[in-house]
Amino acid sequence: MGGDDAPGVVIAAALRAAEAPDRDLQLLLFGPLQTLEGEMERQRSGGHPRIVLIDAPQVIGMGESPVAAVRAKPRSSMHVPLTYLRKGRADAFLSAGNTGALTAASLFMLGRLPGVARPSIPTYFPSTDGVCLLLDVGSNMDGRPEHLLQYGQMGTAYAQCLLDVASPRVALLSVGEEPSKGNELVRAAYRLLTKAPNLNFIGNIEGRDILHHAADVVVCDGFVGNVVLKLGESVMTALPVMVRQEAAVQNLEPDIIARFMTLMRGVARRFDPATYGGCAPLLGVNGTVFVAHGSTGTHAYERALLMAARSASANLTRAIQQLVNNPE
Amino acid sequence: MGGDDAPGVVIAAALRAAEAPDRDLQLLLFGPLQTLEGEMERQRSGGHPRIVLIDAPQVIGMGESPVAAVRAKPRSSMHVPLTYLRKGRADAFLSAGNTGALTAASLFMLGRLPGVARPSIPTYFPSTDGVCLLLDVGSNMDGRPEHLLQYGQMGTAYAQCLLDVASPRVALLSVGEEPSKGNELVRAAYRLLTKAPNLNFIGNIEGRDILHHAADVVVCDGFVGNVVLKLGESVMTALPVMVRQEAAVQNLEPDIIARFMTLMRGVARRFDPATYGGCAPLLGVNGTVFVAHGSTGTHAYERALLMAARSASANLTRAIQQLVNNPE
Repeated sequence: MGGDDAPGVVIAAALRAAEAPDRDLQLLLFGPLQTLEGEMERQRSGGHPRIVLIDAPQVIGMGESPVAAVRAKPRSSMHVPLTYLRKGRADAFLSAGNTGALTAASLFMLGRLPGVARPSIPTYFPSTDGVCLLLDVGSNMDGRPEHLLQYGQMGTAYAQCLLDVASPRVALLSVGEEPSKGNELVRAAYRLLTKAPNLNFIGNIEGRDILHHAADVVVCDGFVGNVVLKLGESVMTALPVMVRQEAAVQNLEPDIIARFMTLMRGVARRFDPATYGGCAPLLGVNGTVFVAHGSTGTHAYERALLMAARSASANLTRAIQQLVNNPE
Repeated sequence: MGGDDAPGVVIAAALRAAEAPDRDLQLLLFGPLQTLEGEMERQRSGGHPRIVLIDAPQVIGMGESPVAAVRAKPRSSMHVPLTYLRKGRADAFLSAGNTGALTAASLFMLGRLPGVARPSIPTYFPSTDGVCLLLDVGSNMDGRPEHLLQYGQMGTAYAQCLLDVASPRVALLSVGEEPSKGNELVRAAYRLLTKAPNLNFIGNIEGRDILHHAADVVVCDGFVGNVVLKLGESVMTALPVMVRQEAAVQNLEPDIIARFMTLMRGVARRFDPATYGGCAPLLGVNGTVFVAHGSTGTHAYERALLMAARSASANLTRAIQQLVNNPE
């Protein structure tokens, strides 16, 4: 029931994902049963053999307090699937609902992976040469050095399992290359990352290096990461405005401007989270949980479903646990 | 002697600034006297009546330790002019030398303005509607809440004196609008900024708001500000690459691409610090000190000289002191 156009877009995406080559894939959709059945009947009379509709009558609103919602609505479309996950009756859970509520509910229902201090949601950040993973981007404010170390480990596991990068370059976001650069948190995290085995830690990078793909996994505290992420996303909205202003200054003909705006939309798309699936895993909880953007469309939602399924098949949670707990 | 093409570019800029309408402007150039005289003779035989060359035989290299340089080279082209400033024989000092050494030397020779906890160098950040001031951008790592308050006050004084903004909108960079958002530092700074009189504090803004000119003065700690600044600058270098890649995807004709690249250079220029004078004041020291970018060209250097002079005329240091110490 989460997201802007639920459950219509979710059911449409599930119907497409159910046609995926993976013969073992089964999709369980949770929500008020009558609503789901009505929407399914509308989209495909008789349903689909790989899709099961399951009753979860309570709905958590975007404005609700995450912690209160966890306790007050045990039969919500967030809690019932998490119960399935905990009991091994589902392998992965994707939700486009309130991120705070999903994080709180996942921690409450599944707990953290043994050894993990703080779960973190990574994000894709564009560059001149593919994307990099940036984490944390806001799950945790006031991070500690050991959190940043674990972001590096969890990001590595994710890049290895899901992005097919054998030895992901992990970098620490700072204000200069030298280990002495940065604030107290970053200097301490540098020392931990340097000592961590099984990590391809390449040292500090600066803000200017991210767009040039200096690393595959960029580690920072949640406050800094959120500022970077939002600034990056705003390039998408600010750039077309600046281009139009500059075109006016340079007195370009309208048809040239129109062609350039088409080009710019292509560039701007790189800064749009939806381009990269519009979903991200909640790394570090004891189960495969993915967050989808609330405004995700059918196609992105379909890819997100397949990504969550692939993440469970690749056993991402085990890979994280091994990197965090058995660094040798 | 600071900067990439010193002293040639400095003398060229001084010769141009000396023609400014301000009849009281006098320019004192410091460096090894023979070097300065030779270069002046080469550029304008006989010199200029408004330009005085003053001997400062020691030169501080870019790689030198700031603190060591302060003590080891008392006759450097950084120390002699600061002595002039301290004794009231000069009103403003502009240097393109090592920023760390200039900050250390200024603090050593001039001290802080009474009541100011940490000097800070603001920077211009581009937006869809003019520029905003961003501070701190790296002078201080591990800022405290009262530092962030003073960044807001010093930024306000600067915008009022130099940018002709009567009531600059001051915003705190955070991860959400609500006062409860952000890390511990930002939440505490919010409380101080809200209570501060004579500040037009508009609350928190997010990373996405900066490029859309949501505020005239954006306050953040030096680590975050440096990451934001460098990421912004890298848009200038990454964007043309992305545009070329996208043009290849869209199969555009070479002459169309060439026209787009010209347009993009115009947009990219907004992200180039040199566009905004290539200089910034060292706010909070007891004197008018400006830092120029090391790669500043003659024209930008000329504007920086006039900016520093204007800053002294507008009595920026007094304005800062009043805002910091007499908030009522």
